[in-house]
Amino acid sequence: MSMGSMNDGLPVLFADVAAAAERLRGVAAATPLLESDALNELTGGRLLIKAECLQRTGSFKFRGAYNTILALRPSAVVAFSSGNHAQGVALAARLLAIPATIVMPADAPRTKLEGTRALGAEVVTYQRLGEDREAIGREIAERTGAAIVRPFDDPRIIAGQGTVGLELAEQAAARGATLDAVTVCCGGGGLVAGCALALSHLVPGVAVHSVEPAAFDDTARSLAAGQRLGNPPEARSFCDALLSPMPGELTFAINSRLLAGGLAVSDMEVAHAMRLAFRHLKLVIEPGGAVALAAALAGKLPVRGRTVGVVVSGGNVDAELFTEVLNSA
Amino acid sequence: MSMGSMNDGLPVLFADVAAAAERLRGVAAATPLLESDALNELTGGRLLIKAECLQRTGSFKFRGAYNTILALRPSAVVAFSSGNHAQGVALAARLLAIPATIVMPADAPRTKLEGTRALGAEVVTYQRLGEDREAIGREIAERTGAAIVRPFDDPRIIAGQGTVGLELAEQAAARGATLDAVTVCCGGGGLVAGCALALSHLVPGVAVHSVEPAAFDDTARSLAAGQRLGNPPEARSFCDALLSPMPGELTFAINSRLLAGGLAVSDMEVAHAMRLAFRHLKLVIEPGGAVALAAALAGKLPVRGRTVGVVVSGGNVDAELFTEVLNSA
Repeated sequence: MSMGSMNDGLPVLFADVAAAAERLRGVAAATPLLESDALNELTGGRLLIKAECLQRTGSFKFRGAYNTILALRPSAVVAFSSGNHAQGVALAARLLAIPATIVMPADAPRTKLEGTRALGAEVVTYQRLGEDREAIGREIAERTGAAIVRPFDDPRIIAGQGTVGLELAEQAAARGATLDAVTVCCGGGGLVAGCALALSHLVPGVAVHSVEPAAFDDTARSLAAGQRLGNPPEARSFCDALLSPMPGELTFAINSRLLAGGLAVSDMEVAHAMRLAFRHLKLVIEPGGAVALAAALAGKLPVRGRTVGVVVSGGNVDAELFTEVLNSA
Repeated sequence: MSMGSMNDGLPVLFADVAAAAERLRGVAAATPLLESDALNELTGGRLLIKAECLQRTGSFKFRGAYNTILALRPSAVVAFSSGNHAQGVALAARLLAIPATIVMPADAPRTKLEGTRALGAEVVTYQRLGEDREAIGREIAERTGAAIVRPFDDPRIIAGQGTVGLELAEQAAARGATLDAVTVCCGGGGLVAGCALALSHLVPGVAVHSVEPAAFDDTARSLAAGQRLGNPPEARSFCDALLSPMPGELTFAINSRLLAGGLAVSDMEVAHAMRLAFRHLKLVIEPGGAVALAAALAGKLPVRGRTVGVVVSGGNVDAELFTEVLNSA
């Protein structure tokens, strides 16, 4: 079997990620790869932090949204999202002069609701427990003719998010580092699937791990079981960006083939990572954006003596919650 | 008069900044130039944010310290500092395997005291009101034979800090932007002097402004008066990194020749800038590191329709103060 055949039969290929990177050039920010002496000392390894919280709209979601909407060029778009995909779609639509409607949970962080409206999108709220956001989105799409921009289970979305992994591989190589492992947050699995596509192609042998909140470890359990499993309805976590019910079809097809395994972290481990990022990285990270860092800092994978890439995926957190986390040490 | 003669007679030349950049390559981080759709919309201009809070030790001070200690190669070093220069000297000395003693005010932010000790330096504290830190530093130097690494009034320090301006000019050019103006924080004036040297050479016509806390506007008043003036002893500000009594001799010689003028901002304007940076830039900025951003956001210089470089110089702030600022809106 040749090296290139690793992606055979997958619904998205490395070439799709590379094409997305071309479309995003000069539009998405090439977010920096950061490193902290203190965190390296703390772990005994080398952490290379892909600071995607510094992306336009404050999360990686803009990449996939722009890549998708640019390809579709629809007359209008609709999306359902807890907030980061919402803002990514809203900005992408605005840049392409296309009207956007976003279906968001009424209890989404205020900064995400306000951020989405500030980008010119129409926001429709729903109750997270009880209403079906996909049904609401479909109804709007059917009534208005808008194209649905799915949050993760779409080849163009996965390819767009994969540009994070592509940049990470290139930036690590540029500083002479060889990545042994990479940790990436996982809700529906679009970001980690895209990153795994790029990284497995560019860094042969690298171990890519998904990281989830412990109560929403559907991807970890699904990887172990070899089939898609869901989370119990009573599951709770303060990682508002990662509360997906189960892995996507396309994302799981990729992740089950390319990931080294699935990790999970507690909300307390996430809060600790947010505090260390405040202190040593000078980054504002939201809970869902900090799980990959939490996994590396909490010893969920071996770091000592190794070079580990960590995707910090978003920074859209309300001041009240951030304050609570900083003061809960 | 040729373009090149602009720096004639100055105590530091552009060539010194360029040489410092060579020494710092691969040692100091090339900090990213960030941009926020929201802040651009808010100001009606284009703000290019040089995120130097992402530098090693959390501030620009590492650049000048490393450039100086590498050139001197002394058997030991001593420095006096409220905290950022302390950490910069401590890390530079550690990388070069030279013992360091740092004289710090007892009321310096805890994160700065702890950070300096964590880097292996010996910390000697003094009372900010009543004891003379320079005298304490001189006594240690005489007793131990250590070389004093001055916080700003030294040609090598100024050249090292100037690499911030050099990178800013190169990064702005790389994205096709032409800087109309640049704002830089000012305590003793080393950073703004170095940046002005680099920027006046690389971006002809750019207007470089120093920015100080309103109660510590010695450089602004000195520039207006054409001579070095001090601050009243009763002056207070929460910008702990910028509480210098008066401009340096060398820094003022440069700043009086190269700056377009001196700006000042209130502590409330600084706190507002810190909150907007939290929300839109996802950066943790300390008060003294936010004055240049505060000047741009508070309309202290024209931004509408212009491209303005903003140096965010540090992020070493205690969680208690940061949360107080976040919640004081």
